[in-house]
Parts: sequence; C-alpha cells; structure tokens
Amino acid sequence: VNGRKKSGLNYLKSIYMKNFADRLVDGVLAKGAVCVGIDPRLDMVPSFLKDEALQEANGDKLRAAALALLSFSRGIIDAVKDEVCVVKPQSAFYEQYGHHGVWAFEEACAYAKSQGLLVVADVKRSDIDSTAEAYANAFFGGADLFEDKTDIDFIDAVTLNAYLGWDGIKPFVEYCAKQGKGIFILAKTSNRSSGDFQNLPVDGQSFCEIVGQYIDSWGADCVGENGYSSVGAVVGATHPVEAARLRKLMPHNFFLVPGFGAQGATADDVKASFNSDGLGAIINSSRGINYAYSADGKYSERDYQEAAFDAVVLMKKQLGA
Amino acid sequence: VNGRKKSGLNYLKSIYMKNFADRLVDGVLAKGAVCVGIDPRLDMVPSFLKDEALQEANGDKLRAAALALLSFSRGIIDAVKDEVCVVKPQSAFYEQYGHHGVWAFEEACAYAKSQGLLVVADVKRSDIDSTAEAYANAFFGGADLFEDKTDIDFIDAVTLNAYLGWDGIKPFVEYCAKQGKGIFILAKTSNRSSGDFQNLPVDGQSFCEIVGQYIDSWGADCVGENGYSSVGAVVGATHPVEAARLRKLMPHNFFLVPGFGAQGATADDVKASFNSDGLGAIINSSRGINYAYSADGKYSERDYQEAAFDAVVLMKKQLGA
Repeated sequence: VNGRKKSGLNYLKSIYMKNFADRLVDGVLAKGAVCVGIDPRLDMVPSFLKDEALQEANGDKLRAAALALLSFSRGIIDAVKDEVCVVKPQSAFYEQYGHHGVWAFEEACAYAKSQGLLVVADVKRSDIDSTAEAYANAFFGGADLFEDKTDIDFIDAVTLNAYLGWDGIKPFVEYCAKQGKGIFILAKTSNRSSGDFQNLPVDGQSFCEIVGQYIDSWGADCVGENGYSSVGAVVGATHPVEAARLRKLMPHNFFLVPGFGAQGATADDVKASFNSDGLGAIINSSRGINYAYSADGKYSERDYQEAAFDAVVLMKKQLGA
Repeated sequence: VNGRKKSGLNYLKSIYMKNFADRLVDGVLAKGAVCVGIDPRLDMVPSFLKDEALQEANGDKLRAAALALLSFSRGIIDAVKDEVCVVKPQSAFYEQYGHHGVWAFEEACAYAKSQGLLVVADVKRSDIDSTAEAYANAFFGGADLFEDKTDIDFIDAVTLNAYLGWDGIKPFVEYCAKQGKGIFILAKTSNRSSGDFQNLPVDGQSFCEIVGQYIDSWGADCVGENGYSSVGAVVGATHPVEAARLRKLMPHNFFLVPGFGAQGATADDVKASFNSDGLGAIINSSRGINYAYSADGKYSERDYQEAAFDAVVLMKKQLGA
C-alpha cells in the first residue's frame, strides 16, 4: 500500500511539475480560453447561502462571512467547471474578512484544484528580493516549517506587480522553471486610470511596452513544449490598441485578459490578445459570470449557478465567433 | 456602565480619527524617527520560542509556526516600544503560513497598537478600483458584514504600489481623509533592481519622480495641522540621490525610508529624506533590529530582546548625530 501511495504521489508531482504554460495550452485546447474570476462580495451572495452560513457559524459573523464566501465560490466553481479550464479567485474579497477570509480563499482554491481546474490566485503582490521569496513561499509552498517545508499545492499561478524590478520577480520565476508554476505580471491593466503610469512615454514607447519586453526576457527560460512561457502578462481587454502592440513584443507570453463583460470589453476587443495560432490568451470575466443571476430578470437568487453556467456558455460562443 | 463604555469608545475614535501625519509627527517628536520593521522568519526565531510554540500547538506545525511568529513579534514590540513610535510588520513573512499566519499578523498588529505604537502594515497591495476598495476594507475595516460593517482598528497605515494609477489608490486616500488612516506609496524602493523601471527616463525625469509628483497631488487633501500629508511615500535609504530629488518634489509627504542597516544604508544616506524642519521621514530597520542577537557574539538567543533594544538605541544615536 505504501508503495502504491508513493507512486501515486510521484504521478501527481509529475503532473504538477509539468510546465504551467503547457498545462494551460492543454486546458484551453480542451475547454476554450475563458477564465472565470471568483469575486465573492458578501452583499451579492444569494441570501439562502448567507442564512446557512450564519447558522453554521453560530453567531460569529466573520466566520459566517468566510463560510458564505466559500460556499458561493464552490457554487460558481461547480457551475462552470465543465466549461472552463481555469479560474481566478481574487484574494482581496476574501482578505476583507481577515484570517477567516484567507481560510476561505485557501479552501476555494483547493476545491477548484480538486475539480481539475487550473487556479490563478489574483494577489498582485510585489516586494523586494527576500520578501518576494516569502510571498512565493506563501502561494507555492517551501517556507521553513521547523525541520520541514510548507507544502501548498492548490495554486498554479499568481498575478504580480513588477514595479520593484527583477529581484522581486525572480523568486517566482524560479518556481516557474523548477516546479511548474506560473505568473502573470501586470503590463497594461483594465482599469480607467491604468494610463496614469502605464502609458507614460519612455524612449518612444509606452511604459507598459517596456514592462512587456522585460516580461518577455524574464520568461525565456520557462518556455514549454508548446512555445509559450509560464511567465505571462496581464493585458486588459479594455485597451485593444496597447494589447496589439504588446502581443507583437511578447509572442511567447500568455496574456491573462481581464475587462470582458462587466468592465465593458467585447469579443472584438480581445482579438488583439491572441496569436495567429489562436492561442496565447485567456479571457477573464468575473462579475459578469458570478452575478449573472442579478443581471437578468429570468433568474432568481436560487438559480445563481444556472445563470453562471449560461453566462459562461454565452461568453464562449461570443469568443468563438 | 453602558454610558461609560460608549464615551470611552468615542474618545478612542476621536484619537483614531486624528490625521495620521499629525499622529506620526507627535510620535516622532516624542520618540524619534526610527521605525522598527517586524520581519519574523521562523528559522531566525530563537529556539526556546519555537519549542514553546510547538508544545502549545500540539503537533500542528502551521499553527506552531504562527504562534512562534506571534511570540517573537510581541517580544520585539516589547523590547522597542519605549524607544520608537511606529512599527512596520511585514505581511509576507506571516502569509507564508496561510490563514494561521494571517491570524498571527492581526494579533501582532493589535498587540503593537495596544502598546501605544503606530502600526504600518507593509502589504504593498495594488488593484483596480472596486478591488482596491476591498483591500482598503481588509486593512481599515468597512467591509459588508451582513447588516454590519467589519471593524478593524489595529492598522494605522499601509504600503501601496501605484502601478495601476489613481483609481487603485483612491479608496485608500478616502480612508486617509475621513478616518485618520495613512498610506505610503512606493516611489523609489531600496532593492538592487529598483532602477529597472523606477529610473527609466520620462520627459527628462526619472519615472519615480513622476510617481512622486502624483503622490504629492494625491495627498493634497490629507494635509494635517503640522503641514504633512497622510499620503506618504516609500523612498529607499540606499538611493540618496533620488531621495534628495524626491524630497524637493514632495515637500509635504512623509517618507518611509527602508534600507538602513542590513541593506547597507548609513545615517549619512538618510539625511536627504528629511526636510529642513528635521521632520518628514521615518527610518526603518528590520533585520538589523529583529536579529541583532545573531549579529554580535555577546548575545545569546535568550537575549534577543536586549539585543533589539540595544540596536534601536544605537540606531537612534547614529541618526541623531
């Protein structure tokens, strides 16, 4: 039995160690390029889930909030798991409830992983060398744990902010090269103020294009069999002109593309983020799927999973066109 | 009793609501400009604290790690609390142990606060508008909690990364203006790679100088009675030339200055970060104080608090000169 257990573990490890970009390409080829963001906002969680959570938590409201976020996250994951290969839980919504919320975040990621999904933890962390290493340990495991190391196997990739330069990114790239993890570095973000700094002119280019070129070079040692690097970029769908320029500068980097749906971008807007092979991008929608039940009068709160499923199917259809 | 409780709460709230920069100036005038970073690394926590934690956690190693980090944090806080007005716990070191670690982070911040210290949570967060609001709620309270809002009163200020522009900073600035909170936005960081992006040339200036000018304008509505804004900047002591330029561009913004000690900067290097009034900067040292016991043969692990105290006193002397 011990022997079987071990070889099972080795088999699992060999899957985890496979280049992240290759795993992502496999997933996209099987299920399409949609990524579902998991953005649990307590005031938007269906009432019956909140009531159950309040009852289970016996009056501890922070615990109840965490339980409600988790059951909603699981519900969305269950609703979409047959239609997509990757989900992106947003850490901020969980962190609002302190360590209770972080527990829910871990459980939500682990549940998505257990259902065969790739998990991109949207954490947008940044820090200097040795502290960046601590963050890499926080999400990918490997922190000192007395005579052991921590073992975290429920996150495949994280989002990062590169303002501090290479030494803040390097610890994560090492996980990409050696342990099959992935990162998506902010290049051009989807929000309205993204131009404040990202579009500043540097040597005849936009600042975000300089960042893009760094991302390209940082990812050179993490290119998988499919020609894509596990070091990717965040490129908002709301800025198709910049996306087209960045696509040319970063032919081997996967784009995580937020901004579709609730933030206003359309299927036309995301075209620029794909390469001519039809690969190279995953298109994220969060609110448009999580809260599809509230956007259309034909659903009730109890139908939030059906509404999410329908929204993903519709989005795949729109993107496929 | 209820009446007394309420007026006590109101009194506390009136203190918390006072402009952060004014509270910081009060603290600096009373105890000097040293900020002690709390960077608990499990392998550097004295063995006797780890043994106690392992015993208390009954074999749960993640819980034991969190307990060890917390008792070390409390130990450092106790050692330095009479000599400094502000501490800066680094979230990454706690996050390494998941929700257990985040619990320890919360407890460490709350303990520092209870001892009369200002608490700068070093989290370097960044995100777009509505998600940035969730992060602001995470550290300053105010998230939806069924019919209530979360109430978090143990963090005075956070560090932020402004790569996403104004809408990612705005929710925090509102807490500065309305609830006496503070922020320190990364301008020029202390690490070796900080020049990768921060020193890129934009219109004849360094990129970090553009960021500095934004910080100056973003903080204009949060200037306190002492003439300083609660919107501050992170400016590494390891780059005195840039610090001098930023000081001129940002006369009203407090600088949080990392890099002293273990990272190599000296008292001479930090001069440029102060205004002519002798104010405008707090100088942080983390490793040099936390692990002073290991740097000098005259201390044993059991003396880690005495070593930290001596290191702070020495640093104050060096800075005072």
